[in-house]
Amino acid sequence: MQPEEPMAQPWTRLEELAAGGDRRGLEELLSELPSGETARAFANLPRDAQRSSLALLAPTTGAGVLASLPQAQAADLLDLLEPATAAAIMNELRSDAQADLLSLLAEDRANVILANMEPEEARTARRLAVYPGELAGGLMIAEFLHYPAHATVQDVVDDIRAESDRYASYDVQYAYVTARDGRLVGVLALRDLLLSAARTPVRSLMIEKPLRVSAEATLDELRAFFEEHPFVGVPVVADRDTLVGVVRRADVLAALEGRSESDHLKTQGIVGGEELRTMPVLVRSRRRLAWLSVNIVLNLIAASVIALYQETLQAVIALAVFLPIISDMSGCSGNQAVAVSMRELTLGLVRPMDAVRVWLKEASVGLLNGAALGALIAAAAWAWKGNPYLGAVVGAAMAVNTLVAVSLGGVVPLLLKRIRVDPALASGPILTTVTDMCGFALVLGLATAFLPWLSQS
Amino acid sequence: MQPEEPMAQPWTRLEELAAGGDRRGLEELLSELPSGETARAFANLPRDAQRSSLALLAPTTGAGVLASLPQAQAADLLDLLEPATAAAIMNELRSDAQADLLSLLAEDRANVILANMEPEEARTARRLAVYPGELAGGLMIAEFLHYPAHATVQDVVDDIRAESDRYASYDVQYAYVTARDGRLVGVLALRDLLLSAARTPVRSLMIEKPLRVSAEATLDELRAFFEEHPFVGVPVVADRDTLVGVVRRADVLAALEGRSESDHLKTQGIVGGEELRTMPVLVRSRRRLAWLSVNIVLNLIAASVIALYQETLQAVIALAVFLPIISDMSGCSGNQAVAVSMRELTLGLVRPMDAVRVWLKEASVGLLNGAALGALIAAAAWAWKGNPYLGAVVGAAMAVNTLVAVSLGGVVPLLLKRIRVDPALASGPILTTVTDMCGFALVLGLATAFLPWLSQS
Repeated sequence: MQPEEPMAQPWTRLEELAAGGDRRGLEELLSELPSGETARAFANLPRDAQRSSLALLAPTTGAGVLASLPQAQAADLLDLLEPATAAAIMNELRSDAQADLLSLLAEDRANVILANMEPEEARTARRLAVYPGELAGGLMIAEFLHYPAHATVQDVVDDIRAESDRYASYDVQYAYVTARDGRLVGVLALRDLLLSAARTPVRSLMIEKPLRVSAEATLDELRAFFEEHPFVGVPVVADRDTLVGVVRRADVLAALEGRSESDHLKTQGIVGGEELRTMPVLVRSRRRLAWLSVNIVLNLIAASVIALYQETLQAVIALAVFLPIISDMSGCSGNQAVAVSMRELTLGLVRPMDAVRVWLKEASVGLLNGAALGALIAAAAWAWKGNPYLGAVVGAAMAVNTLVAVSLGGVVPLLLKRIRVDPALASGPILTTVTDMCGFALVLGLATAFLPWLSQS
Repeated sequence: MQPEEPMAQPWTRLEELAAGGDRRGLEELLSELPSGETARAFANLPRDAQRSSLALLAPTTGAGVLASLPQAQAADLLDLLEPATAAAIMNELRSDAQADLLSLLAEDRANVILANMEPEEARTARRLAVYPGELAGGLMIAEFLHYPAHATVQDVVDDIRAESDRYASYDVQYAYVTARDGRLVGVLALRDLLLSAARTPVRSLMIEKPLRVSAEATLDELRAFFEEHPFVGVPVVADRDTLVGVVRRADVLAALEGRSESDHLKTQGIVGGEELRTMPVLVRSRRRLAWLSVNIVLNLIAASVIALYQETLQAVIALAVFLPIISDMSGCSGNQAVAVSMRELTLGLVRPMDAVRVWLKEASVGLLNGAALGALIAAAAWAWKGNPYLGAVVGAAMAVNTLVAVSLGGVVPLLLKRIRVDPALASGPILTTVTDMCGFALVLGLATAFLPWLSQS
């Protein structure tokens, strides 16, 4: 049904080369793949071929492949490899990627890989892996320049010259200056070295008391920091102001994107962390089912309201047509308000304490849109059955329930945030359960009250 | 109901100071606000006070305030100001922010502000505003170092020294080297200047034929570029390789975050661009209603299936309880698959041509989860009415409809992408309409077939 490309798919070639143990062929194919295609090719490769090709590749190439994959999949692959192969690839990754991947592995497995890594790399990775990924300590990298305060311009230039290979992958705009005990005492704009005599001590060129963040700083604090300051990176300090790493603006932005993506997946019911189609079907099915089972129970509770009004339904069977519409439209209206609140929470434009203000603002939108949607559905019901009372009942229920859904949708994320429940996870189910119950009760309650005028239809 | 902070809210103070024309007080208050609080304070300020405080502030402070706000709100504020005030603030913004804001204003208004800006700033802003925001040309900045190929190390050092104030906000790790006709011929790592004699021409230090992107490069191409290369920025060239700007990694990441956020808002029915609660209620209501009206029509179409089976419903009124459940659960199951496909599209792990492969993978998940959810709801129906046939009908409908919803949810985003319809916008409504119709037809069609066994309940 789908026209495939005329050429063999790259993963077919990858699989053949891996099966044939053709290391050079693999390296060539990967270097020829357009950027962005490596991840797709690996995603389509059977697990055996993933393992055997990674084992064949040079560790630097393997590290490049892992870096191009989503972290969950990269960790999965590391898990498949021999410890020595995994460690060799890990040695070639940047310190923050090492720490992130280690945190996704089982502790035993992580320790075996660490034991096989170069001692210096393993030490750094262990140090960074201590911090949760969303704190400055978890986002920082260990690859940065730092010099003692008594070093001279010449010392720095000599070091940069001697280590230029190693520093080639560093972002070297600034170097950090530390005291003997490791305290951060200054930052040195490398460009200032250009203007200085060789014997000048860096102490006299550095900017003293530079801005810094604690290793415990949260992602939101880091975002606020980089919004306020135009820096590319900021030094991270731990106990007693010891310099432990550098957090770069780009890594903070990438972490924010990851968080927003994970929030998005959660609102759509992908709750156990990222799901990729490379994962085993049973794992994917079970994870999704966990969320669906909660929802089906909530749905049964909400629908039980309908069961209370069976006699009214029996008398005016047309109402059954409007129940799913009211339920779905309230969900739509409410989720719009949830999305705006979630966005404003992320941007720091609202806080949990702003709930009343948000409620008032949403209520006006809910009133207007409730009136419009109510009128629309009332007209449809009247036109269908020729009974204006049916239109009035259905329209009034829709109008009131839209008001309820929009007000609730605006406020629920703030209230959940206040009680420290993840709003991305819980806002949707809470909203739809309440608005379903309320909507069903409104339609059927109003219909029961006006039954004599409705049952003529 | 909500305990407010004991101190006056910052926006109350802001409003008072603006009303009193107290410029120094305003500057002080803003400089004291914790980072991240400025945006919230302005979001809570009445429009008059927003205007008067911005008019009072020094342009650099005003620019800082605008930079802290979401772009839609910043553009809104610029629109309120006198052209001269707006232009003075614009002069202080970075070139890419200038271009982004101008593109959000009406053309007349943008031209008036440009006419009031410093000529050099206006020229750059005009140049950048030509490109859509999601191309390299729209993301690039004009603040970068560039030198002619015949310049010497001494020339560069002299320039950096002379212009150090202006360059303070630049990311100066690299300088770009151009030929007489403006063509990009090389890139110069500033750190290499450290190691070179003053008379050396930059031509002999530069890396020749540096990597570059076209001003027409898309966001996805830029992401792929930065995934492959560890650079902080990349030079942008237009016709005949003329150097026109630099795109920085951080700006690409921020644009990706913006796109993912906008996709997320669209899937939740916020479709006319970002919505902020500072916008007028009528605008917010109208925008949301545009999306809701489409949905209510789709809902009416889907629910019309129920109307075809009124007699069956009349005979087995209990079915009315299960219709909204089937509708809602299919939406949940399908949206999980949509979310995974959208994510994999974003990451480049799948392409539209992979639809069949995705379908097969989703179908297995749909089968498993359909069986589980079907069994659950069958048990509930049987237990409630004591009629195993009712359970069988409802359970079978749920199982089949879950399979349909999950398969469809996985594939629809890919198909929409192929026909160049925005999958974030259209996947949800298409999915729920089809699965609602299918679900209603399954429950009521099966019930009609087995009516003799059901109507005993």
